[in-house]
Amino acid sequence: MCLMVKCAICVHLIYSDIVQKCRDELKAIRETNPDLKPTLAIIQAGEDDGLLEVNKKMAGQIGLNVMQICLPRQCTEDEVIDEILRLNEDSRVHGIFLHLPQSFLSRSVRNAIKPQKDVDGVSDLNVGRVVLGDQRDGFASPVAGAVLEMLARHDSPLIGKMAVLVGVEGPLKATIQCLLQNNGMMVQTCQWSSKHLQKQIMDSDVVILLEPDHKSFPPTWIRPGVAVINLSSALMEVFTEMFVAVVICQHVVRSSRRWIQEQQYQPWRLRPLKLQPLSPVPSDIEISRAQTPKPISQLAQEIGLLPEELEAYGNTKAKVHLSLLNRLQHQPNGKYVLVAGITPTPLGEGKSTVTTGLVQALSAHLKLNSFACLRQPSQGPTFGVKGVFLCFNLHLTGDIHAITAANNLVAAAIDARILHESTQSDKALYRRLVPSVNGVRCFSPIQMARLQRLGINKSDPSDLTPEEVRAFVRLDLDPEKVTWQRVVDTNDRFLRKITVGQANTEKGHARQTQFDIAVASEIMAILALTDGLADMRARLGRMVVGSNRNGQPITADDLGVTGALAVLMKDAIKPTLMQTLEGTPVFVHAGPFANIAHGNSSVLADKLALKLVGEEGFVVTEAGFGADIGMEKFFNIKCRTSGLKPDVVVLVATVRALKMHGGGPNVTAGVPLPKEYINENLQLVADGCSNLKKQIQIAHLFGVPVVVALNVFKTDTQAEIELVCRIAEASGASAAVQCHHWSRGGRGSVELAQAVKKVASQKNNFQFLYNLQDSIVEKIRTIAQKVYGADDIELSPEAQAKIDYYNQQGFGALPICMAKTHLSLSHMPEKKGVPTGFILPIRDIRASIGAGFIYPLVGTMSTMPGLPTRPCFYDIDLDPVTEEIKGLF
Amino acid sequence: MCLMVKCAICVHLIYSDIVQKCRDELKAIRETNPDLKPTLAIIQAGEDDGLLEVNKKMAGQIGLNVMQICLPRQCTEDEVIDEILRLNEDSRVHGIFLHLPQSFLSRSVRNAIKPQKDVDGVSDLNVGRVVLGDQRDGFASPVAGAVLEMLARHDSPLIGKMAVLVGVEGPLKATIQCLLQNNGMMVQTCQWSSKHLQKQIMDSDVVILLEPDHKSFPPTWIRPGVAVINLSSALMEVFTEMFVAVVICQHVVRSSRRWIQEQQYQPWRLRPLKLQPLSPVPSDIEISRAQTPKPISQLAQEIGLLPEELEAYGNTKAKVHLSLLNRLQHQPNGKYVLVAGITPTPLGEGKSTVTTGLVQALSAHLKLNSFACLRQPSQGPTFGVKGVFLCFNLHLTGDIHAITAANNLVAAAIDARILHESTQSDKALYRRLVPSVNGVRCFSPIQMARLQRLGINKSDPSDLTPEEVRAFVRLDLDPEKVTWQRVVDTNDRFLRKITVGQANTEKGHARQTQFDIAVASEIMAILALTDGLADMRARLGRMVVGSNRNGQPITADDLGVTGALAVLMKDAIKPTLMQTLEGTPVFVHAGPFANIAHGNSSVLADKLALKLVGEEGFVVTEAGFGADIGMEKFFNIKCRTSGLKPDVVVLVATVRALKMHGGGPNVTAGVPLPKEYINENLQLVADGCSNLKKQIQIAHLFGVPVVVALNVFKTDTQAEIELVCRIAEASGASAAVQCHHWSRGGRGSVELAQAVKKVASQKNNFQFLYNLQDSIVEKIRTIAQKVYGADDIELSPEAQAKIDYYNQQGFGALPICMAKTHLSLSHMPEKKGVPTGFILPIRDIRASIGAGFIYPLVGTMSTMPGLPTRPCFYDIDLDPVTEEIKGLF
Repeated sequence: MCLMVKCAICVHLIYSDIVQKCRDELKAIRETNPDLKPTLAIIQAGEDDGLLEVNKKMAGQIGLNVMQICLPRQCTEDEVIDEILRLNEDSRVHGIFLHLPQSFLSRSVRNAIKPQKDVDGVSDLNVGRVVLGDQRDGFASPVAGAVLEMLARHDSPLIGKMAVLVGVEGPLKATIQCLLQNNGMMVQTCQWSSKHLQKQIMDSDVVILLEPDHKSFPPTWIRPGVAVINLSSALMEVFTEMFVAVVICQHVVRSSRRWIQEQQYQPWRLRPLKLQPLSPVPSDIEISRAQTPKPISQLAQEIGLLPEELEAYGNTKAKVHLSLLNRLQHQPNGKYVLVAGITPTPLGEGKSTVTTGLVQALSAHLKLNSFACLRQPSQGPTFGVKGVFLCFNLHLTGDIHAITAANNLVAAAIDARILHESTQSDKALYRRLVPSVNGVRCFSPIQMARLQRLGINKSDPSDLTPEEVRAFVRLDLDPEKVTWQRVVDTNDRFLRKITVGQANTEKGHARQTQFDIAVASEIMAILALTDGLADMRARLGRMVVGSNRNGQPITADDLGVTGALAVLMKDAIKPTLMQTLEGTPVFVHAGPFANIAHGNSSVLADKLALKLVGEEGFVVTEAGFGADIGMEKFFNIKCRTSGLKPDVVVLVATVRALKMHGGGPNVTAGVPLPKEYINENLQLVADGCSNLKKQIQIAHLFGVPVVVALNVFKTDTQAEIELVCRIAEASGASAAVQCHHWSRGGRGSVELAQAVKKVASQKNNFQFLYNLQDSIVEKIRTIAQKVYGADDIELSPEAQAKIDYYNQQGFGALPICMAKTHLSLSHMPEKKGVPTGFILPIRDIRASIGAGFIYPLVGTMSTMPGLPTRPCFYDIDLDPVTEEIKGLF
Repeated sequence: MCLMVKCAICVHLIYSDIVQKCRDELKAIRETNPDLKPTLAIIQAGEDDGLLEVNKKMAGQIGLNVMQICLPRQCTEDEVIDEILRLNEDSRVHGIFLHLPQSFLSRSVRNAIKPQKDVDGVSDLNVGRVVLGDQRDGFASPVAGAVLEMLARHDSPLIGKMAVLVGVEGPLKATIQCLLQNNGMMVQTCQWSSKHLQKQIMDSDVVILLEPDHKSFPPTWIRPGVAVINLSSALMEVFTEMFVAVVICQHVVRSSRRWIQEQQYQPWRLRPLKLQPLSPVPSDIEISRAQTPKPISQLAQEIGLLPEELEAYGNTKAKVHLSLLNRLQHQPNGKYVLVAGITPTPLGEGKSTVTTGLVQALSAHLKLNSFACLRQPSQGPTFGVKGVFLCFNLHLTGDIHAITAANNLVAAAIDARILHESTQSDKALYRRLVPSVNGVRCFSPIQMARLQRLGINKSDPSDLTPEEVRAFVRLDLDPEKVTWQRVVDTNDRFLRKITVGQANTEKGHARQTQFDIAVASEIMAILALTDGLADMRARLGRMVVGSNRNGQPITADDLGVTGALAVLMKDAIKPTLMQTLEGTPVFVHAGPFANIAHGNSSVLADKLALKLVGEEGFVVTEAGFGADIGMEKFFNIKCRTSGLKPDVVVLVATVRALKMHGGGPNVTAGVPLPKEYINENLQLVADGCSNLKKQIQIAHLFGVPVVVALNVFKTDTQAEIELVCRIAEASGASAAVQCHHWSRGGRGSVELAQAVKKVASQKNNFQFLYNLQDSIVEKIRTIAQKVYGADDIELSPEAQAKIDYYNQQGFGALPICMAKTHLSLSHMPEKKGVPTGFILPIRDIRASIGAGFIYPLVGTMSTMPGLPTRPCFYDIDLDPVTEEIKGLF
């Protein structure tokens, strides 16, 4: 070794080499990430000094940005920490260097720095990592790094060499020592005062002097070829400082590279929860209580979400930011699987359990990334007759409450507006709508938008003619033609038809109206179909709330309420991350009423999940009702809006439900099940498979392959099961498998998962059933004939009038969202199996312009369920001590 | 030194000494914490072995609990991590020891252990702490600890001694090395193969052998008196293992002690945010946007909350668990300050800004712990005419939505029950209410409760007589006597009087009713007054929803809905932690309507805050409306319920409002302010101070001292300000100070904070104004005469009838919650100043039995505000790109 105090040229060569490497690396980073500016933030107290200049100069030479935070010399520890915390959160900053007197570098200050930005290696964690020889995530002290660089760049290998560290104690010594030892050297330490000093120096191959330069020893102690690194010598100061500075810069470059890496798609590191299947199978709430969920932040980390993309709501649920779509924009989507069902019966098919069973099997058992995207259940039915599953909290993250608030703000604005217009002159209305604030009158942006729609291109309120003022201030809503309803998230049957405005203060403006269940709000349908904040805001503004006395549609934007709606909905637009009982990820987001809307969970949740699972992963979502309704709308409305292409349909059936389609007797709640459903009956099964076959054919209309999932119950016989599978495959299903997830969790669905995996890998020819440009009547007829099997459709005069009206208003090119009973392929709920030879009557037609569809009413659709005589709230209770919830099954 | 391989006795003495110390310490811990069982959790893979036995035996000897997790020998890394994560969260476990083969101790496994439970010192962070010489929070490797113990217990000091570590590389070597160096020794390392081995050993005072015992050296190399510690020698094995085991136990004891420490009250370490006062003063939303709030978890840590007591809702708000009350039950409360106001005028007094200004001044400027406890604003007025402040999110943590859901579930249950009872026979009702499930009929617990109230002491459904069945199944609610209203959190005036049940499905049961604004729900009043889950559940059950045809009250419990309501409200009961613009803590919790309820934020938030601030700290809360209403209810209702005693009242006034009370002209929104309010007018000020004086006297009725806070506006003159302060002090205020927080933030309220601090330190004689046992009439008269200054009260016949009814039902001993206009001390809103010579008319009387008060109606109280012609939603918008909210001022 020849590296010595005096050997400046040698040091300089190594140094120049590192500088060049840094520059090259930075150039490479910039080529792939032109917007990224790797930045070193320096916190200093007091004026600049030489060392700081060196660091800044070095950063400049290499091409790093420098952000300099200058605090007064007398600043407090808290002020330093505040700055550090700010820089920690600043995504522009990749490294933090504290250029502060030693007295400032307290434990709290050092450890305030995020380890991944601690390029000076001063935090406890980073020091620990150096000692344990692991610097994948952290940084070693640059001084120690510089020493190692100087030694390592040398031609002679370090292993087995003896080094002595002379001088002060402390972390730096410990770090250098560990770093050298981890590189195979033997290290001894020595104090200047030691009687062994001469011997130790003379025995060493490398001498590192740490003490300030007030001590020295005779040059003769150094054997020839021994490397001496003086970290304090006045002579070497500049070089050492520059060397240290370049290592800091090297760390900043490395930190930027790690940041880029972190922004990329991350392979999952999912740790599923082990499920202990219980026998007998307990009720759902007991299952989910027995299992301790992972902290949601842990699940998020496992599936590659960044901490800043997560907004926790307690420990078991979190909202996920839409910025993820931007971060992973170049990541190919995973496979897209839809779970649909045969025509529903009171016996239930278990689509939701198939969905969770499938993702559990895919994730936890086949080790394929997978995500379930589910609808948020309404609170109303929870207290009425339906159950919940997973660890759903009743309010979840408040999305349905936000929808209720937004929906009812529109309603209140409508009635208040009608009242105010009826009691005020144009002038008075105008004065109030465009008031003088501090002597200035101006239109708000939303009023400017209305003026433009009215064709009034003026921006000074005093310029409007009386006619223009009148057009502007009067929405002239026809109370008889208000289509907007209030909503409430309770099964409150007494609100199905009500009269509002009967108080004296409302001056005789009473009118009849109704409340719907909250999930029936058009705002829910918008939430489910939107692709981002801007789009949601635009859709909210386009919602038609009624028409004026001239028959022109009036929108939420005309009411001036668009912005407030967007504000109310700004958190609801983020999907909620939760987990299955086996610890696999689930998005719960949106749950539009399947009767009058499209009954599918949100486009955004699916899009986020498709990015997160990666190209080989699976996103499994679920359509409400039978495939003829939920799946048809999934394809024609949801996929059309999102642009996403489905890979497989999983069609869920049960032996019992098929028996009912085959002609089995009716069932009544509370009365024992007829024996046909308990004993083997192959004829009923075979007959009922007609419905299954028809639903398979419907999926094939869209060019998507089908896997039939037979959800097995304990009374099903082997012969019945085999019969269903045989008929399903004969009907064109790519596979038909039995599922036992109900009793065995994800393990019970492994066969299904394997079938889905296989079928999803095949290419398919997805296509829509109709073109948007077809006439409204054509579109309805196509669905009625091809999907439902009707001979034709029959329009009522109201329906025909509405079609004319929508065409005239330019709404003719919207997709169709049929509002038909889910209990039959036809419009007659009692007709099971595959009804034929019927004409589908279209009673009326409505439109959700904001959501973007037209919905023909086939029969009457209740939009407000009721409570039964014994609602299930009788069993619900809270243990005030353990806070455990009882009776939510 | 004499410590050698052979000197077993010496080691044993030291060892026994440590064992004894551990036992003593454990005994001391148990004396003060009898329920605490310090526990060491050991994760092992495969069967027990000798070393494990040593550890378990040692723990047993010392008196520690041992929890043994046995994984199969073939377990995966994930399984180990799962167990670790579970133990991390298990509050019974104080130390985790991994008894696993070296190959399991990967980086992920080691670092999965919470550093504070890592008694084996294997995590990166703990190693870093050892190196940096700081073990306050972590643990060093017990082997290294044992070595140091052996050496340190010796009589000769370690400083300057030379030690050599012979053998394997790795973390253990590094840890021992650093630990010895941090204790003043010089350390060299050496490999067995080194040519320097003999020399290094012979030069050393301490020789530590790390390598497995297959190497050795001649005993002659050891100088006399040199200590040799063989960490692998077969001879020493048992002792070494025992020694290490006892150090692990020592760590567990230390960990338990730290845990106890952590459970105690923690002094605050608040880092206020620096506020840059802007000139001119910007709108509120601009102020709060300019300031970056601290992450809420950071604020929580600063004020001594434990991580497990916090439930984050995004980054700026979190719910706080009520378990805190139990943890800090022995901690004395801080000072309790109420902010009240003079009789409100349209000009505003700024109680809320005084409240936040005061806590900012106390916390950030006087360095006294302080907490503001505020009401959650209703969403309705937000979109109508009122503003919000702080960084309130519109939905906050969903408490008002939870109240709405709970309230409306009761309403839906009422009407559905009336309908079901009208259409079914007793028998049919009974069959449905108590159905046969799998052949078994039984009453649910809530039905048992109803049976008991009916005096039916039977538990078998088949035992009831037909009369008993009838009594049980028929609530027989009188539709005319239903007092429960639906609510909505929107200013929806058209819902003030409505007719529900007009659909055919409701079979002619239409009835007239109304919606109130959500905050007017009795459930909100309960939330504000309850002291915990059990109490809230009981109050919810007691809520009277109407009466039956015999005039008997029917409760929520009779409807069977109590448990469901408790479940819906279980998260709402936890106060929401937020922060002021200067980063000081705020609880936002409950906001009952001040018109018909008590208008004060929650008892629970105040209780939590009083514990958190500590004995010298301050909790500042605010009463709605003027002191005659809000403060009177605060004392007579809220303090009576909570048992808390107020220390000071801060009475807020403005020069402008006083001028109006002095006879100044009316003001109209949108019209320029009359000159009386802009120019100096001492006469109006002096006359208006009569109202201020009266409000001071009201506070003194309760024995609580008053500090007057004059909220200064820019048009106030020095003479006006001084006049108010002079009159206030002459009227008995303990101090009267001016506040400039509006323009200067907390700094503008420092004088107020100092006055509050001084007055709060004086003893006061707090007393209620009336006894609960006084008759209802007496209680109303006392308030009317002593507080309002009325000559007497006058009861309408309805009011008198209600009093008789409540007395008969046993509700006579509840406190009184007056529903009177807030715009005057009298019942006549236009009478400013101090009206005299009036008789207070009591139009009607109602009762909130669940909340626990009777509310006499003085005039008509609107419980549903309306939207103005130009609601402020016209200005509200969301920037879809930055997500910034505009126009919420």
